[in-house]
Amino acid sequence: MSYNLLKGKKGIIFGALDEKSIAWKTALRCHEEGAQIILTNAPVAMRMGEINKLAEAIGAPVIPCDVSSNDDVENLIVKSMEHFGGAVDFILHSIGMSINVRKGLTYTENNYEFSHKGFDISALSLHRVMAYAMKHDAINEWGSVVALSYIAAQRVFPDYNDMADNKAVLESIARNFGYQYGIKKNVRVNTISQSPTRTTAGSGVKGFDGFVTYAEKMSPLGNASAEDCANYIVTMFSDLTKMVTMQNLFHDGGFSFTGVSHAIIDQMEK
Amino acid sequence: MSYNLLKGKKGIIFGALDEKSIAWKTALRCHEEGAQIILTNAPVAMRMGEINKLAEAIGAPVIPCDVSSNDDVENLIVKSMEHFGGAVDFILHSIGMSINVRKGLTYTENNYEFSHKGFDISALSLHRVMAYAMKHDAINEWGSVVALSYIAAQRVFPDYNDMADNKAVLESIARNFGYQYGIKKNVRVNTISQSPTRTTAGSGVKGFDGFVTYAEKMSPLGNASAEDCANYIVTMFSDLTKMVTMQNLFHDGGFSFTGVSHAIIDQMEK
Amino acid sequence: MSYNLLKGKKGIIFGALDEKSIAWKTALRCHEEGAQIILTNAPVAMRMGEINKLAEAIGAPVIPCDVSSNDDVENLIVKSMEHFGGAVDFILHSIGMSINVRKGLTYTENNYEFSHKGFDISALSLHRVMAYAMKHDAINEWGSVVALSYIAAQRVFPDYNDMADNKAVLESIARNFGYQYGIKKNVRVNTISQSPTRTTAGSGVKGFDGFVTYAEKMSPLGNASAEDCANYIVTMFSDLTKMVTMQNLFHDGGFSFTGVSHAIIDQMEK
Amino acid sequence: MSYNLLKGKKGIIFGALDEKSIAWKTALRCHEEGAQIILTNAPVAMRMGEINKLAEAIGAPVIPCDVSSNDDVENLIVKSMEHFGGAVDFILHSIGMSINVRKGLTYTENNYEFSHKGFDISALSLHRVMAYAMKHDAINEWGSVVALSYIAAQRVFPDYNDMADNKAVLESIARNFGYQYGIKKNVRVNTISQSPTRTTAGSGVKGFDGFVTYAEKMSPLGNASAEDCANYIVTMFSDLTKMVTMQNLFHDGGFSFTGVSHAIIDQMEK
Repeated sequence: MSYNLLKGKKGIIFGALDEKSIAWKTALRCHEEGAQIILTNAPVAMRMGEINKLAEAIGAPVIPCDVSSNDDVENLIVKSMEHFGGAVDFILHSIGMSINVRKGLTYTENNYEFSHKGFDISALSLHRVMAYAMKHDAINEWGSVVALSYIAAQRVFPDYNDMADNKAVLESIARNFGYQYGIKKNVRVNTISQSPTRTTAGSGVKGFDGFVTYAEKMSPLGNASAEDCANYIVTMFSDLTKMVTMQNLFHDGGFSFTGVSHAIIDQMEK
Repeated sequence: MSYNLLKGKKGIIFGALDEKSIAWKTALRCHEEGAQIILTNAPVAMRMGEINKLAEAIGAPVIPCDVSSNDDVENLIVKSMEHFGGAVDFILHSIGMSINVRKGLTYTENNYEFSHKGFDISALSLHRVMAYAMKHDAINEWGSVVALSYIAAQRVFPDYNDMADNKAVLESIARNFGYQYGIKKNVRVNTISQSPTRTTAGSGVKGFDGFVTYAEKMSPLGNASAEDCANYIVTMFSDLTKMVTMQNLFHDGGFSFTGVSHAIIDQMEK
Repeated sequence: MSYNLLKGKKGIIFGALDEKSIAWKTALRCHEEGAQIILTNAPVAMRMGEINKLAEAIGAPVIPCDVSSNDDVENLIVKSMEHFGGAVDFILHSIGMSINVRKGLTYTENNYEFSHKGFDISALSLHRVMAYAMKHDAINEWGSVVALSYIAAQRVFPDYNDMADNKAVLESIARNFGYQYGIKKNVRVNTISQSPTRTTAGSGVKGFDGFVTYAEKMSPLGNASAEDCANYIVTMFSDLTKMVTMQNLFHDGGFSFTGVSHAIIDQMEK
Repeated sequence: MSYNLLKGKKGIIFGALDEKSIAWKTALRCHEEGAQIILTNAPVAMRMGEINKLAEAIGAPVIPCDVSSNDDVENLIVKSMEHFGGAVDFILHSIGMSINVRKGLTYTENNYEFSHKGFDISALSLHRVMAYAMKHDAINEWGSVVALSYIAAQRVFPDYNDMADNKAVLESIARNFGYQYGIKKNVRVNTISQSPTRTTAGSGVKGFDGFVTYAEKMSPLGNASAEDCANYIVTMFSDLTKMVTMQNLFHDGGFSFTGVSHAIIDQMEK
């Protein structure tokens, strides 16, 4: 399937770990829609994952980038502009990491060094990427930046731990930088708040299966898949959504505005 | 411009009064994207406007429909299915009317008969259209219903009068019916909260120009135009946004999440 | 318990049907806190309930009022001012009614005459009360109006039917009239979004017990009781909350911002 | 004025720099309402401010505490329990600091070390205080924690810089820890989103006067003062608001739900 929605556009995609990744599927869909892509991920994630397989499939260079490093981010921006011979049209930020979650800590007993690290990689990284992009004027007029978020930014999902706080600040950064980049160059910045998705990253969260099942029963259309999300991101990178900015867009089969579903009530009564 | 995003799709579009109308431009864009359309509007609006000109341009039949009449709405649904030989894929509800606004009443002195009439036409009409569509199974699986709203549903814009209340209940109906239609047939229902737009209808609101200028200065990307809105609606009717439902989507150049802009502060200091 | 928080204040309380009513308990608490009260309810509700018992207990006159009648509402306002020899300091609107719910209709098959009636009594009535109060200058500077709402105004609770829409517009009216009354006389207007409460009215909703149990498990502090709500309303009528207006205040033990609780996940896994 | 609303209650108040501080006024009001207080602030802020004057006036001990230090926070909790011979009933977190703001940096050019420092002191500190309180079981059943926030957590106020992000995560921490502390001990946690207030801290923000004037014209009741805020906080510490938790409560004269006011439109047209 291709509509040529992104014909002639160029973009950078963060976070394509393996073929389950939303970023992976988004790269594929963007390619199908006519875009040229640069892939990037943290060196450590690149070793664990299979990004080169994807790179080959879509003819995309891979530029490693530890998003907690100013130098790495600046290098990525500069190299991308060299590669494309100019600025990009879109960026996908699909990055999140909590050491507190990995270590299985409870929210009330988090380690603050881990919290800082998670804040830096999961949230501040979005600021860093846009700051260096702005510094080098690396995004074209009406370009589009999308970062992936989760509804834990609005409501409590206890096992999501400090990723909830990280997503809250990620959305805040999207809003605040979105204002600045909008004023300056009509670049729009949004977050997409996606259903819980069985990616390699997502599965690391304790009680994740319970999450997914609950969300599935609570969502009138069921959970949105990674493929669905890739399609939605394509619309956000296209010229058809130019005036959408500073928004957090729920892509979740209706979960976010369902107070309770019949499916849940039925389950409760068992 | 065409991506064939709606190739093979069929839809009903309410509210194309004249060429400034969002519904008018949406009908044109849907047609360009490959959709077949049925146009409809209230008999009185049809006399005032130029819907037949549009009908001719896109080869669409026009079926008059007073949305406050159960019979008219049912007739529209039945006739549409006859015309298309089956169900539709999308519906655009672009309808709003307040007699209190027209008469220039202040919110605190509204006439309640007028309020009821406005409620019926501007909000309950969305329920009525979907109820008769559901009764006749007139929307295909994964179909998409969009209704146009305004941010007065969330925050006070004093001159908007009872249209604020009407939009609040319109969004509520979209949510509630969206749940039901989602569960039943994976039909999704959303509202788009559009920038103030210089349509013939919009211009009826007292102090509308002040509105528009204020919103323009407050929005990092400026106000979204009717053309922009038509493009956005196209994405919502396409297969790329299948898992978005029960949402109110701000299409406003960033207005909704801007607390204050430099442009406003500068103006304040004059 | 009394803090004299409402010493010298005068108010009108709608909706004290019987001793389970939030309005009933609020009247008692306001009386304990030093306020003088006028009770009112629809004639039909007065016959079904026991308002006179309450009236006697707190020495309050009862003025019948069908809130869908302009004349009745104006009469109530005028008579209240006569009784108190001046304006009031607070009003509690605790009124809701849906014939669609009573008849056991499903949301998608609602009768629109019933919808209009429910809209009028459950929502427009708040406008009517404030409009006649404003006309007769019947609320003192910094007075406080509170209306009871429910989270179905924000998210779908399928069995709540069109009361969801009614609460959405009720909250909109509180916001919009709150602006107008604030500008004019520093009167503040808020809604309190209360946990599902086992009142005589609440129990009429189909599947209400399921509701209550679900909410109890979902709320970190459990459901808020009618007594808790009365206490909270007292603070909103007091001079300590003068700058809170146009808000919808969740009083629900944390339900509204809990995405999922351990108690629900545990129940799901059974 | 005293209602004895906090008679017998004990609490810790952070952030009373000088007599303009909201925390200062809150300490006074809590004392008037019958509470016993422990005051605390960062050593550097204590030197700059006049906390000892307040301490004397209300007979409160002062325990210095750098909230970015685990040891300091734990010491404060332990010492407070020793002083009171048991747990406390309330805590006020009125702390915020951004080096990026102080240095006059623009949001897009922030220094990330400064961002980390601001995140730690302005937001993570709330987690730290509650974590050590929970560890030492230092808050009584139904105790109340309040942190001060600002609407920049929801919408962009460009000059507020990274304090916007800090407030977003502060509110997220209140929500998430509120769930945990609610489940465990019925302790409730809320943030109050206060009007811009002419405190010594507030005045540090560039363009702050423009802010205040704009907010004043936009708020139907005008801006809420520090005194008003102190009163509101008293209600949140009292037993009358027991079921309010995990909320962000706007205390702002209606600013948050006003889309535009007549006063602003008038000013715009000048």
